[in-house]
Amino acid sequence: MGKTERILTILRQSGDFVSGTLLCEELGVSRTAVWKHVNKLRERGYCITSVRHRGHRLDSSPDLLVPEEVIPRLQTDRFGRDYRFLEETVSTNAVASRLANEGCPEGAVVVADAQSGGRGRLSRVWFSPPSSNLHVSVVLRPEVAPGQAPQMALVTAVVLRRAIQTSAPCPDISIKWPNDVLIAGRKVGGILCEMGADMDRVKHLVVGVGVNVNTSLEDFPPEIGDQATSLCTAVGHEVRRSRLLGTFLNDLESAYDVWRSDGLAPFLPELRDYSTLLGRHVALTQLSETLEGIAEDLSPDGALLLRLTDGQLREVLCGDVHILDY
Amino acid sequence: MGKTERILTILRQSGDFVSGTLLCEELGVSRTAVWKHVNKLRERGYCITSVRHRGHRLDSSPDLLVPEEVIPRLQTDRFGRDYRFLEETVSTNAVASRLANEGCPEGAVVVADAQSGGRGRLSRVWFSPPSSNLHVSVVLRPEVAPGQAPQMALVTAVVLRRAIQTSAPCPDISIKWPNDVLIAGRKVGGILCEMGADMDRVKHLVVGVGVNVNTSLEDFPPEIGDQATSLCTAVGHEVRRSRLLGTFLNDLESAYDVWRSDGLAPFLPELRDYSTLLGRHVALTQLSETLEGIAEDLSPDGALLLRLTDGQLREVLCGDVHILDY
Repeated sequence: MGKTERILTILRQSGDFVSGTLLCEELGVSRTAVWKHVNKLRERGYCITSVRHRGHRLDSSPDLLVPEEVIPRLQTDRFGRDYRFLEETVSTNAVASRLANEGCPEGAVVVADAQSGGRGRLSRVWFSPPSSNLHVSVVLRPEVAPGQAPQMALVTAVVLRRAIQTSAPCPDISIKWPNDVLIAGRKVGGILCEMGADMDRVKHLVVGVGVNVNTSLEDFPPEIGDQATSLCTAVGHEVRRSRLLGTFLNDLESAYDVWRSDGLAPFLPELRDYSTLLGRHVALTQLSETLEGIAEDLSPDGALLLRLTDGQLREVLCGDVHILDY
Repeated sequence: MGKTERILTILRQSGDFVSGTLLCEELGVSRTAVWKHVNKLRERGYCITSVRHRGHRLDSSPDLLVPEEVIPRLQTDRFGRDYRFLEETVSTNAVASRLANEGCPEGAVVVADAQSGGRGRLSRVWFSPPSSNLHVSVVLRPEVAPGQAPQMALVTAVVLRRAIQTSAPCPDISIKWPNDVLIAGRKVGGILCEMGADMDRVKHLVVGVGVNVNTSLEDFPPEIGDQATSLCTAVGHEVRRSRLLGTFLNDLESAYDVWRSDGLAPFLPELRDYSTLLGRHVALTQLSETLEGIAEDLSPDGALLLRLTDGQLREVLCGDVHILDY
């Protein structure tokens, strides 16, 4: 931790005025140096009141995703203990995959303030203006076969829905199988899981999440504007990204451990209860074919059970779904 | 291509003496320079006869896996057209995976003369002394779901068996499902496929192959000596690695195209006919369990159909198999 971050930590822990003398002693620097660090914090958006003979007091923090803002919120053992913050990146998943290949520990987290080339599933572009959204990727190393990995995408959807419910409580937060979270039918968050695997087992699984947090509707490109929303649009005020991230990571670690010991079963009730698709008439596109039918249920493995128009029941592991009976 | 390689190409294409004057003209260099290049080739193991007033003649080439030795053998469109030769690497698969992530074309090939930390399936060490074995990885980008990727490992096993049959004809070359090739029951080659994938589809599949070519039995570590063999041990003379590699890559490209259009069906007869396992009593270890039974058949997808001791038939996608009824 740098000296600026140490001053921030001291001010935050105190919650009241901290004398300049005490800061000088703690850091072993001059009064002028303390002033410089305090001003650096102000430049970053921290509101600090400085009063002669009383010292400095932290009044408010900006909504940054730097480690100093996020790590104090973590109650995890492993998740986020290796925490990489990037001002901007092409894709947090790409960075996390590289770290995973280089042997980073399980639970390593990559967060970007802005994503310049965000990837969605099937290589779609995910719209990401700077400083308003959440882009996070977590490296996992579950001892499972590649075929089981999609379950973790569903677990992540449950966790993301819960985190949104906590940080931005509003009605109608749903899960669109297999990897979107919607508010009132509009996409607010997406999950992109990618793996490195041999034919037997997963070597690493990168769980990537993107959430529209404080984007206003007019910031969306027109072509996605009517299908997307953001948390701030849904609740009518800005939502603190660092809180959303902390809540998400804390719950993701627990959920991951539950999944590894008990599988998907503990998550099926939420996947069903909050499903956008079940009971709906849908078109599902896979690599080479499009299926049409009623989304009847989820299998114990999280596959979508689709009742085709000819009455046949098809179990579909993954795909891109459009609801037809709006 | 450097000047040394150009001289090599000219000598090889001629097959007879090429005058020093002609080489000087072709390369635009002095007679002394031509001599230097010819001597460089000699240092690399090329036998070149030089006769006053007649010129230079290539009599024999060393068994190198450098592009000049391999590319002339290729009849492929894509495979090996991006060809990377490394004197030594930890793992050709790791290099190929990195190239794949960086966007290299399909068919890119990584070859190493020696592998210092070869990985086998389940992270086992693959024994690799320098200059005697073949280590090659090919980057593929099939448009398939992750669950279909293991089929390509089986296709590769068929192709590798054929290439060995061609380059080192000998009896009893068999395929041990899912990814070994044996001669007379001893492992001579192994296949390690690794993929980068999202939950829907494979982004890249790296097909890695290791073959014991000219290793003599006494070079194997004692703990694997009785389970392994090499082509030169099997046929009683050295086998040219560049020829084996060319044959393998030529057939792999065709087989890959067949697999993409027709699936695994065209390969099932060979997988069955040359199977080490079918009809045998085996123990199969997966991530968390060991199954015991008779290997009855392969499914159309290449899964092993195992008749368990209680009479139940289990379809197994992958695993590590030991034959119990020796």
